[in-house]
Amino acid sequence: MNLTEEILKGSPRAIAKGISLVEDDGAKAQDMLRAIFPHTGRSTVIGITGSPGSGKSTLADQLISQIKKEDSRIGIIAVDPSSPFTGGAILGDRIRMMRHSLDPDIFIRSMATRGHLGGLAKATGEAISVLEAAGKRYILIETVGVGQDEVEVVKMSDLVLVVLIPGTGDEIQAFKAGIMEIADAFVLNKADSPDALRAERQLKAMLDLGIKNHDIPPVCKTVAITGEGVDDLWTTAQGLLLKRPEADRAFRKKRLIEWMLRDIISTKVAQTVHSRVDEAEFQRFIELIYKRKTDPYVVADGIIEQLKGT
Amino acid sequence: MNLTEEILKGSPRAIAKGISLVEDDGAKAQDMLRAIFPHTGRSTVIGITGSPGSGKSTLADQLISQIKKEDSRIGIIAVDPSSPFTGGAILGDRIRMMRHSLDPDIFIRSMATRGHLGGLAKATGEAISVLEAAGKRYILIETVGVGQDEVEVVKMSDLVLVVLIPGTGDEIQAFKAGIMEIADAFVLNKADSPDALRAERQLKAMLDLGIKNHDIPPVCKTVAITGEGVDDLWTTAQGLLLKRPEADRAFRKKRLIEWMLRDIISTKVAQTVHSRVDEAEFQRFIELIYKRKTDPYVVADGIIEQLKGT
Repeated sequence: MNLTEEILKGSPRAIAKGISLVEDDGAKAQDMLRAIFPHTGRSTVIGITGSPGSGKSTLADQLISQIKKEDSRIGIIAVDPSSPFTGGAILGDRIRMMRHSLDPDIFIRSMATRGHLGGLAKATGEAISVLEAAGKRYILIETVGVGQDEVEVVKMSDLVLVVLIPGTGDEIQAFKAGIMEIADAFVLNKADSPDALRAERQLKAMLDLGIKNHDIPPVCKTVAITGEGVDDLWTTAQGLLLKRPEADRAFRKKRLIEWMLRDIISTKVAQTVHSRVDEAEFQRFIELIYKRKTDPYVVADGIIEQLKGT
Repeated sequence: MNLTEEILKGSPRAIAKGISLVEDDGAKAQDMLRAIFPHTGRSTVIGITGSPGSGKSTLADQLISQIKKEDSRIGIIAVDPSSPFTGGAILGDRIRMMRHSLDPDIFIRSMATRGHLGGLAKATGEAISVLEAAGKRYILIETVGVGQDEVEVVKMSDLVLVVLIPGTGDEIQAFKAGIMEIADAFVLNKADSPDALRAERQLKAMLDLGIKNHDIPPVCKTVAITGEGVDDLWTTAQGLLLKRPEADRAFRKKRLIEWMLRDIISTKVAQTVHSRVDEAEFQRFIELIYKRKTDPYVVADGIIEQLKGT
């Protein structure tokens, strides 16, 4: 049985292998992705983002327990900048998540996404494809990093949860810019902290001020570490998903496709170009640039021009 | 007087404008960068990276005080994934760094680097170019994010400082993979913590085990918030810089040029391709992909093929 068939049967090993292929981004990946593509697009994707230390992973872990009651075919991807520096945290997450990893229906994986070529939308979209093909009905995308790209990708989920912690008032101020447009619901985690009430008031006041064109997203209070409030959060999330117009869901999925497609095109073109550049000549150019006898912009134009002629 | 001339004169306003142009990545940026390029390549670049909360910014701030004694023409770039979520921290850093910002020779800036097109090497390399053209002799590159790309770029600095904090043993374990190759020196910050001695021993034991092919990097202890140990750190750093073979420095600078050049080529080619794609047709493809009547890989190949013929 080939990899595609095994993925379609939902084999955890095959899913893992599929996602590894996506990370490696080689020719094999494309064959697999093409084969599974007709079987994709039928999950509910929930994006979870928020500042570091806000308890996103623990919250995701607790959310799984809630979602499982409805449907245990769940996939989780932690979008991971793959830094040696986050290794510790991710290790911790993995251990924490192990209580679900005994459940064969639940697939948990952190994924390295930052290659030199190939963007985040492509990598995330492809990982979602693998999970969808394997029959997952709910997919949680958790950002480990907090870069703009991560936020952009997460916002194409069917539902976006933004996790905040009380007592970081200046952070909330800084959120003003992009955050209101991203969140379908806010999660005020560590809500047992003494600052929680003030933080909630501050957040709501901010939302009242900032949001003009659509409904103010609900603010859910949780203590992820004990699971407190996570049932209410899931009820809220389900309510939001139910009342979301089909057109809106389609719009988000199409945006993700658009990003993926642009990433795929950029990656393919760049790979072709770089594979066709003569390596010895390239090194000579670097030497000339290093000696400031030319500049990288002229060289880049020259190389591109030269390739056009071939 | 035009922007290039003003940058070459070291005007802080012109530097700021130059770096903004780099962030925007338009045609104007390239003209400016080409004009300043002959005046670049003559600074000592110090990269500072480390886990979040390790005190990198405070350390950078204290390092400036030390470097200033030798040469006050200093530039600092905080490579910033430009997330709304890091806004708070960066704001804090900026305020903290204000004591130096009164010094007209010292230029401090955090820079957004994650566009959909254009990589980190390009953005960082170009910012370094602007600062070098403006006469900066020492350039500190501090990573705000901790992604693999940031680490890759930082490791092309003339000197790489990796900042660690005591009491994060599991993190140190996770460091094993990439960290030893990156660091020219380790900074054990918050060295007044009760865990400091144990952390130092652990780190040294780990380095003894892991490093076979070259000298074990020194471990400097600092308390960035009070400045303790930062003078010794700077002495160590200067020693390392002095004894570094010219060939090694050249190698790192050429690697950065190579990355920049690859980024520039990828960006230019991708921009050209995307600008030539017919928007209405592109949207029709997205619709077809959304309906699973085709897949993004076939569409990407088709678009690329079609453009080749034009």
